[in-house]
Order: sequence, then C-alpha cells, then structure tokens
Amino acid sequence: MFTKRWLSFSLVAILSLALLFVARNSFSAPDEGMWTFDNPPVKILKEKYGFVPTKEWLDHIRLSSVRFMDGGSGSFVSPHGLVMTNHHVAMGQLQKISTPEKNYVETGFLARTREEEIKCPDLEINVLVSMENVTDRVRAAVKPGMSDAEALKARQAVIAEIEKESLQKTGLRSNVISLYHGGEYWLYRYKKYTDIRLVMAPERQAAYFGGDSDNFTYPRYDLDVAFFRVYENGKPLETPHYLRWNSQGAGDGELVFVSGNPGSTDRLYTYAELEMLRDYRYPLMLNYINKFIAALREYAAQGKEQQRRALGIIFGLENAKKAYTGEYQALRNKDLMAKRKEAEEKFRQLIASRPEWQQAYGDAWDVVARVVRKNIEFSRRSFYQNLRGYRLPSLALTIVQYVTEVKKPDGERLPGYHDAQLNELKFMLFSPAPVYKDLEEAVLRFGLQLSLEALGPEDEFVQAALQGKTPAEVAREVIAGTKLNDPAFRKKLIEGGEEAVQKCQDPLIQLARRVDPLIRRNIKKSQDEIESVLVKAREKIAQARFAVYGKDAYPDATFTLRLAFGVVKGYPYNGTRAPYKTTLYGLFDRAVSFDNQGEFALPQRFWERKDKLDLSTPVNFVSTCDIIGGNSGSPVINRQGEVVGLIFDGNIESLSGRFMYDDTRARAVAVHTAYIIEGLRKLYDAGFLADEIEGKK
Amino acid sequence: MFTKRWLSFSLVAILSLALLFVARNSFSAPDEGMWTFDNPPVKILKEKYGFVPTKEWLDHIRLSSVRFMDGGSGSFVSPHGLVMTNHHVAMGQLQKISTPEKNYVETGFLARTREEEIKCPDLEINVLVSMENVTDRVRAAVKPGMSDAEALKARQAVIAEIEKESLQKTGLRSNVISLYHGGEYWLYRYKKYTDIRLVMAPERQAAYFGGDSDNFTYPRYDLDVAFFRVYENGKPLETPHYLRWNSQGAGDGELVFVSGNPGSTDRLYTYAELEMLRDYRYPLMLNYINKFIAALREYAAQGKEQQRRALGIIFGLENAKKAYTGEYQALRNKDLMAKRKEAEEKFRQLIASRPEWQQAYGDAWDVVARVVRKNIEFSRRSFYQNLRGYRLPSLALTIVQYVTEVKKPDGERLPGYHDAQLNELKFMLFSPAPVYKDLEEAVLRFGLQLSLEALGPEDEFVQAALQGKTPAEVAREVIAGTKLNDPAFRKKLIEGGEEAVQKCQDPLIQLARRVDPLIRRNIKKSQDEIESVLVKAREKIAQARFAVYGKDAYPDATFTLRLAFGVVKGYPYNGTRAPYKTTLYGLFDRAVSFDNQGEFALPQRFWERKDKLDLSTPVNFVSTCDIIGGNSGSPVINRQGEVVGLIFDGNIESLSGRFMYDDTRARAVAVHTAYIIEGLRKLYDAGFLADEIEGKK
Repeated sequence: MFTKRWLSFSLVAILSLALLFVARNSFSAPDEGMWTFDNPPVKILKEKYGFVPTKEWLDHIRLSSVRFMDGGSGSFVSPHGLVMTNHHVAMGQLQKISTPEKNYVETGFLARTREEEIKCPDLEINVLVSMENVTDRVRAAVKPGMSDAEALKARQAVIAEIEKESLQKTGLRSNVISLYHGGEYWLYRYKKYTDIRLVMAPERQAAYFGGDSDNFTYPRYDLDVAFFRVYENGKPLETPHYLRWNSQGAGDGELVFVSGNPGSTDRLYTYAELEMLRDYRYPLMLNYINKFIAALREYAAQGKEQQRRALGIIFGLENAKKAYTGEYQALRNKDLMAKRKEAEEKFRQLIASRPEWQQAYGDAWDVVARVVRKNIEFSRRSFYQNLRGYRLPSLALTIVQYVTEVKKPDGERLPGYHDAQLNELKFMLFSPAPVYKDLEEAVLRFGLQLSLEALGPEDEFVQAALQGKTPAEVAREVIAGTKLNDPAFRKKLIEGGEEAVQKCQDPLIQLARRVDPLIRRNIKKSQDEIESVLVKAREKIAQARFAVYGKDAYPDATFTLRLAFGVVKGYPYNGTRAPYKTTLYGLFDRAVSFDNQGEFALPQRFWERKDKLDLSTPVNFVSTCDIIGGNSGSPVINRQGEVVGLIFDGNIESLSGRFMYDDTRARAVAVHTAYIIEGLRKLYDAGFLADEIEGKK
Repeated sequence: MFTKRWLSFSLVAILSLALLFVARNSFSAPDEGMWTFDNPPVKILKEKYGFVPTKEWLDHIRLSSVRFMDGGSGSFVSPHGLVMTNHHVAMGQLQKISTPEKNYVETGFLARTREEEIKCPDLEINVLVSMENVTDRVRAAVKPGMSDAEALKARQAVIAEIEKESLQKTGLRSNVISLYHGGEYWLYRYKKYTDIRLVMAPERQAAYFGGDSDNFTYPRYDLDVAFFRVYENGKPLETPHYLRWNSQGAGDGELVFVSGNPGSTDRLYTYAELEMLRDYRYPLMLNYINKFIAALREYAAQGKEQQRRALGIIFGLENAKKAYTGEYQALRNKDLMAKRKEAEEKFRQLIASRPEWQQAYGDAWDVVARVVRKNIEFSRRSFYQNLRGYRLPSLALTIVQYVTEVKKPDGERLPGYHDAQLNELKFMLFSPAPVYKDLEEAVLRFGLQLSLEALGPEDEFVQAALQGKTPAEVAREVIAGTKLNDPAFRKKLIEGGEEAVQKCQDPLIQLARRVDPLIRRNIKKSQDEIESVLVKAREKIAQARFAVYGKDAYPDATFTLRLAFGVVKGYPYNGTRAPYKTTLYGLFDRAVSFDNQGEFALPQRFWERKDKLDLSTPVNFVSTCDIIGGNSGSPVINRQGEVVGLIFDGNIESLSGRFMYDDTRARAVAVHTAYIIEGLRKLYDAGFLADEIEGKK
C-alpha cells in the first residue's frame, strides 16, 4: 500500500510494497546514517575520523552519483559518460535487449567500439543537481480548519504545483520529497538521461556467483558490475564530474563513504506499526512471494526460453524473499523489539515532560496505532483487489487511468498523474522493451487466482475481474486478445484520450476498466482515511523529534541521494571472524568446494585463464557503511573522493537494519576495484575499458 | 566432580570436569549415535544405507583403532606400526620433547630414518582387543539391605577384583566400563603400548591454521595431523590390522564411519541436572577458565621461552573455553531445553503407565533432582578445596595418597589406586617429561589465589594450604624447594612407602599432606552422599529405558571405542550453504584475506611451494557422524574399510551435541586424505612416508 505509482512497473515494487513513511530513531552514533547532502554528518566525521568534507568534495561526489530508475544507484567513472553500476541493477535492461539467440544475461556483453554499444529500451538515470527546502510553502497550503483529508489534498496539490513550476522553469525532473517523516519537504531537481547504452557486462554466473544461496551473505566472491555510457544529443556525455579510480582499494580500517539511493527503511515506525508488520504485513508478503515463485517456476520449467524469460522476475522475487525473511526474523527478535519499544517509551516520556510538547505532539502515537490497527483488513483486501500481473495489466490500468486523470486540474489527480510526472510515465508506457505473452498470461493467471483465493468468489473485485470465468480462462482470453504489447497501440490510445479508451474493444483494456472503479475507491479510502491521518500524525512525531533532539540526524531512506560513512572492517561470524576482504583464491575455493556445480559453477573463461590471474587479487570487501536495498551500484569512495569499490549487497546480519542499525555485525558488501580491473583486463579482454576507467588514455 | 583420577594429569581434566554418568535419550535416528562395537547400528545401516558390516569388518576396524591416553584417538595406517592422529593430540608430547633450541611445535618435525624417530616420554596408547559383559557379576555384588553407600563400595570392590583378575590372567590393561548409565558393565581389555616414537608433525601454524578463531568452526583449512610409530621390544610393531589408505577421499553424500573414543556426552542427564549445569556448573567453569587463561597470559608475556612453555596449556584452556561457551549457549537455548524437558516428561509418563515400572523406577528422577540440588554448594566448595596447579602439585598429592592407599585391601582404596590401575599410575608418576618450575609456580599461585578468593581466608582448606602466608609466598617456597621435578626422587618416595613420605621434608609433599585429609573427606562425602545415590538412581533410569525402548540404542560417551556413521554433507550456515569440502584455494584465500597475519599467517614453505601444489586438492570435509571431544584423531572410514579422512573437530553448531544430537547443522570436521598426501609429498619432502601410507613400498 501507499506504493509510489512508478514502482509497479518494476520489481522494485515487490521490494517496496511494505513501504510507508519513514524516519529515524537512534541519535547516538556508531557508523550510522543515510545522510542527505545538505546535512552531512560533519560533526561525527570530524570527531571520530578527523575528516572534514568540503563543499567541493560533497558537490563533486553528488554530481558524480546517479540514480537508476530501474531501482539502483551508480556513478560516473570516466569523463566520457561511462557509468558503473551492478550487474543485477543492469539485469532488467540486459534481459530486454536479449533474444533467444543472443542471451546477454548468460553470455555477458562487451562493446569493443562506441558503435557496438547497445541502447537500452527504457532506462532512465538521474543526477541530483539541486536541492531546495520548500517546507514552508508546503505547510502554508494547509489552512486551519481543514479536515485531515482536505489537508492531504491541499498538500498534494501544492506539491504538484511546485513540481510543475520547477519543471517548466528549468526543464529538470522535479520531485518534492518528504524527509524526516514529513518533518521537511525538499524540491529535488534532477538532470535526466534516457539515452543510455550498454558497454559491458560479465556473465551472470560471474556476477551472481553463489546465486540465491550466497545472496545477502559474506564472505562473497561476486563480479557484480556492469558499465553503461550516457549519451546526450547522440554523443557520449562529456562531464567533469566523475570519480577517479583507485585500483588499490581501501585498506583494513580505512574510512570510506557510500553515495547512493537507499530505497526505504522503517527505523522510525512506531512500535504499533512494527507489530502490524510482524503480525500481518510480512506473513502476507512472504505468502504472496512464495506462491509467486512457485507459479513462475512452473512456467520456467517448460523450457530453456521460458527459463530465460522468467529469470529476472524469479531473481527479483527470490531476492525479496530472502530480504523479507531476514527482516521478518528481525521483527520476531524479542531483543530488537524490546529496544524499539524502550526507545519509543523514552521519547514519549520526554515529550510528556513538557506540557507544550505534550499538547502539540503527545497524541500522535496513539493516532497511528489506532488507524493502523483499524485498517488491517482493509489493507489486506486492497492488496488483493488489484491487477497483480507482470507488465501488460499495469500498462492497461495506467492507460485507463491516464486518459481520465489528465482531464482534471493538476492538483486533483491521482498520485502519479500530475503534469510534472507525465514525461516519466510516458517513457515507461511507450517502452519498446519486448513483451512475452506466455509469461504475461502465466503471471496474470497466478494473480487472478491469488485474488480469488484470498477474497472469495463473491468479492466485487473478483466478480468484476472474472465475470464468472476461471482465472485461467480470463488470463488466456485477455492476453491472447490484447494488442497492448505493441507500443504504437498504447501510444494511439493515450493520444486518443478518454473517448478512444472507452470505445476500445481490447480485452485487457476492458478488464482494466472493469476493475478501475474499485481500485480508485480503495485509493480514495486509503488517502482519505489512512494516509491523511498518518501524514499528520507522523509530521507531529517528526516535529517532536526536532524539538527534543534537534536536526543532528538523518531521515529514513526515500530512494533519494544519501551519503553513508564507515570503515572497512571484518566482523565476528559463524564462531570465528569474517575477513575484511576476500580474494580470487576464495572464488576458486568455493567453486571447487561445490564441485563447480549449479550456483557455484564458474564460467569456462575463469578456468581457461586461471593461470593468468593474480589469485591474491581482492574480490569483495566489507565496511560498516549504513546501506539498504536501492544502494546497489553505489560507489564506495575514499577520503580523496576516489572510487575504491562498488556496493552490491548487505550481509545476512544487516537485514535487521531496516528497523535498527547495528555496526557490530552488519556490513555493506562491495566489489573491490582491483577485481574489476583484473577481470576487465585478464578475463574479458577489455583492457581498453580498464584504461578508460583508470585514466590511462 | 567425579572426574576420573588419571584425568587430572592432563588437560583433558579441564574438558571433563563436568563429566558425570552419561547415556542417551533419543531413540529415533538420523545419523545419530556413538555405538559400541558389540552392538553396532546394523538395522539403521541396512535400512538407511543398504550396508551390512560383517564381523571381520568390525573387528579389523576395532583392531586398527587406537586410543591416546593423552586424550584422543588414532589409527594404524601401515603394517609397520605407523599411527595417525591429530597434531593437537600429539601436541603435549611435541612440547615435552621440545627444548628452547628445538621447538618442534613451531618448526614441525620429520624423522627421515627410523633412527631419527623420537621416543615420547609418557605416551600410552591402547588397542581394544576384547569386550566382555560383566553386568551380572557386578550386580551380584550388591546385596539386599545394603545402604547406597555400601552398595557403591561393593560395586567398586567387585570391579577392582574383576580388573585385577583379568590383568593377572591376560597381562592386558583391563577396565570395567559402566555403559548405558549403569545399565550394563563391560570388561574392556586393551593391548597397551608405551614405546611410541614421533615420526612426523607439521608446523602448528599449518596444523592449527586459523587458531582459536577458527577452532570449532567450518569451513576450515587445517593440516591437523601427526604420525607416530609404535614399537614393541625395540622394534616397529608389525601388524595386519591397519587401515588401507584412500587418497581420493569420500564423495559428496557418501556413507562414512568414525572409529574413535568420544570423551563424554550428557544426553541422558535428567532435566534437573541440565538446570544445575546451566545455572551453576558452567558459570563456575567458565569463570575458572577465564581467570586461568588470564594468569597464563601474564606468565607467557614474560618472554618467548615462557610463551613456548605455556602454549599447550593455553591452547587447552582456550579450546575448553570455546567448547564450554558453545555448550553453555545450548543450555541457555530455550528450544533445546524445552525438547529435553518434553522427552523426559514423555518417558516418565510411559513409566507411570505401568505400575510395575512405576514401582521399580518411578522415583529415580526426583532422587537425582534432590541430591543434585542439595549438593550445589558442597560441589562448589569441593572444586576449590583442591590443589589446582599444573603437574607438580598433582604429582605430590598422588604420591601422598599412593603410599597410603596401596597398604589397604584393593577393594577399599580410593578410585584410581586399585592394583589394576597402578601400572598406568606409575607410568605417569615417573614420566621423565620436563617440568618448568617457573610455570609450575605461576599456575600454583593462581590456583591458591583462586581458592582463597572463592573460599575466604577462614576456610580450612585455605588455612591448611596457606598457613597464614600469601598464595604467592606459598607457591614460591614450595616450588623452589621441591625436588619432585626429578623422576628419580618421585620413584624413591614411592618405593620408600608411607614412612618415606611421612619423613619427607620436601615442601610440596608437605603441602600435599596438609590438604590431603580435606580432599579425602570431600571424596568420601561425594561418594557416600552423592555418587552412591546417583549411581543407583541412574541405573534405575537406564533399566527403565531398556524396559521401554529395548537395547536398540547407544550409551553415552565414556572415552572408550565407539563407531559413528553418517554421510559426507554440507549444511546451511550464515544465510547460505557450507560446502562438503574445502580446498587449498580456500587456505590461501583465508591467509590473504587476513593479510597473512596472526592466526592466519601461513608457514613460509606454503608460499615458497605454492606453485607446486594442486590448489584444487581437498583440505577438510564434513560429515554427519556423531562425535565429540576425545574423537580427535579418529579415522574416517569408507564402506571398504579404507581411511578417507582424519577427524579433528566439530563445527560450532555441533557443540550442543553434548546434550542433544541434531544432524541438520552439526558436522564432524576431518582432514582429507588427499591433503595429507599432498602435504607430505610437496610441502614436507616426506614422499617416503606418503609411500609407506599409500602402500607404495
């Protein structure tokens, strides 16, 4: 619920379904925090590490960092628009440019010339160019006497207005972000790039060595890297803002930074919300994911091509399952919950100690608890009263809503359909990425079946969707009959507007039209009765926090640019110690230990070229930097602003970090720069690319 | 408490202080059990693995297996008396034959000819040649109407008689063993060897790579092996009973066996006893060990030679600390305790369901609970009312007791001083192994200080030991003044008998004489009021178990020969999977990952000869075989009776196995035969030894 609209287009949706409003709760500081660039942790850095980041240092790192709208982070690593991210962030695009004959996910890819670089069908990346505090203007829109629902509408309207103004004035992607849980509102302006071309990716078996088993664990041995090049006006982007490369990497104990876009954390959820997550939301999500995986496995079992088509979505689901499982364990950990409870009680006692605080903020926790508890069943039903398919059902619903919404005044539209958002929406809508009808049918059948089972045949959504047929029949009919797989058809519908859509006989459009009123009704109820109340209560809690603790704090993650810091450091694990880094020796050990089978099979080139490799080359390393999903692809940076690594995961102990940070065992896992260079030069014959990165040409 | 006397001579003492009577409680079967050779798990083996061990197979394995009285296991691996065990089992002897100039622990050792093999000063090894059930005779000694204390004495007397008769008749080491918790008594006869010579040991840094950090963990990379040769009449023992070597090792999933001497398990402790361990015994032991380690570190910090002298004892303590810590965690694990409680309740309900059972056995659990709880404070005081030193104080006390005890009728003596035990006792007493007075003084000072702190200055033991002086003064005086470091002096005292000892002015003998009455008083109370009651109650529980479940079961470990079985198999760990084996790649990975520092530094020869090694050689591997401390050095054997590995440890998840077996994660860790051969040939220039082992000459 409350998921950002665009998320439903990608697998990030699955990772973010539990996303609500967020903030932070711990104010002491180990190496904690995902800090905004306007408020870096200068005090801690100075006191703990004797390091004072200059404005130039911060600006340069910010402008060298990028956000992948596919759901990750990255950085410029050459003056010629070369962007580095993870293979697993690139995977969606790799799949979209692959065919049964040329499966780049399996074989990897290398463009030996600029001409060979392949344009991605629907990849957008962003650079954060400015940040402006617009809290006063947003707050001013809410007038005394407004109901909560009216206040939320007024807020949404003024936000849409600010974004539209900014877009018109600057031409930049403009988003107003709620930080500190409604404590502040900021206008973030992004330079947006959509001509992104694939330069290099290793085989998935090297990038994702160890597979789902090793995912979210360390020690680790992954070459989880991919390179894209940003083009502008048909030419590679020339930019002074890129990170210089350091192939030495960072030493044991060295101070490092991570600049990237953490997706969401729940560190400021109230205790009542954590209980709701533990008792309702996580069980629901894990059940959904498990069934979804089973359905896709059945689909993939049909053949090699089906396996190829389903690979990305299965990966996303398995990834989500492992993350959710770890987070669910954290929620069931009595120690962690007791700490959260204690912190909340202490905070509330402080508020209660001053009458003016108690008067202004004191009721907020109870309000949150009440509204959350009251709507558990509504939230469950809303989850299932939705078209849970893969790409086509989302496209259909978006088209149906789009043509209606754009006729309304900007401030009154559904979230996601404001003028300032239409460019990105159309970019997704008209994406030429391939659509696989058999996969679409399998997923839609699964989704409809799930809704039927969860809601029963009498439910109005189920009746509207199925009209007395079986999920299999409906899925077969609408997917077989739809032309929405053709981007030109989608474009024609959008251009034809409400009339064209109303007349349209496309069976998937008709299905979307049948369920749209119910989905709208749920959104309205959710906005009017839940979100409006929560926004207000959470804003109070945020203000209470500022009142008690000041602004010496970081906001919860919002998939916007943040700076984390920490040291390179091993940790206690499995009865012994995990080292701060791993090596190529370890990669071969793990492969041979599993007899080079399954998830632990190394690509043939590793065996053929083994003797050319320096096996003592560091492969992956860990640091105490505070990160979470969305940080994938973030550069790890040293004091000099050089890139020394590439974030790609957290260890299993870090999964409780969604709720509470703890640097005794939680670690961010990164690819070492030395491995990237060793790999490019000796495994992939990409010395020219290594030269570009290392600045040798 | 209830520690076997001989144990106090070795570090095994520390590992076994919590040892009481033992048995088993789980009768379903994964790969569970430490089976006696008279009752192998033929049914499970046949049903689960289709394997039926023949009598010849069992006999050959039993006669090829040896027990190291230093506290471990081993096996013959050539027809010329060559015995393989762990480096860490050999370590005590390695230390005893080392000097400041020739530190074989640090440098390793290789005898290039028979003449270069070094005789160990006090190593005894045993081969189990026969087993005879003497339950009826032991039971018959207990007459109706005897008190518990009288019954215990009668049992001890008849056992001493059986052992003496057997020794006189056969000349073999003869021990009556209480199995199944007093459910059965067996006379075990051992062929005993005391002319044992060191053949080969690697550097400790290769054998114990990863040190205390990696101890009790897996994945692992240790060459924990040493070779001895057994001599008889001055010549290498020629024997048809040795295990043929298989350098291929065992494959993933293969059935394997372990033949060795597990020290002790507590799987049949009643719930009340587990609570006592958790709440009193383990905290006491961990406190003692921690303080002992601190005292020894202080001693070792004085210089390199002190470090060398203290190395073995510090290793033993750290090993014990890690084992105790894991076991203590198991005891504090609510799930495990709940399972034990549930099993006990179920068992007791079954007993209660038949009046004749209830009548015969029903009260045993309450009796155990009562006596255990009643004597907690007595047990604590007894622990501290003892001479806690290293070797000299034990020698002194043994001499003082010896001369008195041997004058009594055999059946009335203190445990450990029966006629059948005197040969082994004298072997230890007259050992020519070097004694380091500065180390002895440091440890005795620590022990006296500990008693003083725990008991207070008014305690009678403390007063008898210190006589108003400080622990430091007493330790300095008695160690400086004693001649007990001279084996000839010890022999003279023993030969002089009670009169010589009474007249003896040696200050350490005098100290032992002062405390001996108190120690005897504690032993008597322990025997009369605790052990006699427990023996009877435990025998009832054992009989109840036979009545309910039959003899389709194994007894708890008793440091006698057992057969375990299982499969080679990885397991879930750290969020991912541990492989069934590790490789030399992994050894180098772990070294380089820690920058070749500290516990993870590899001996220079590994770096120099790296390119000669096949890095894909398996190093260590795991199986589900059910083992525990004392199994160190046991061979891992395949169906063909070939040795495929060498047990040296359990993983961290196996430590709860003291109380309950669980094969989902608990694993036995072994050195792979391929690594031993690769090491001998390519790292240690010991091809001739590899040839002997592989039967190539």
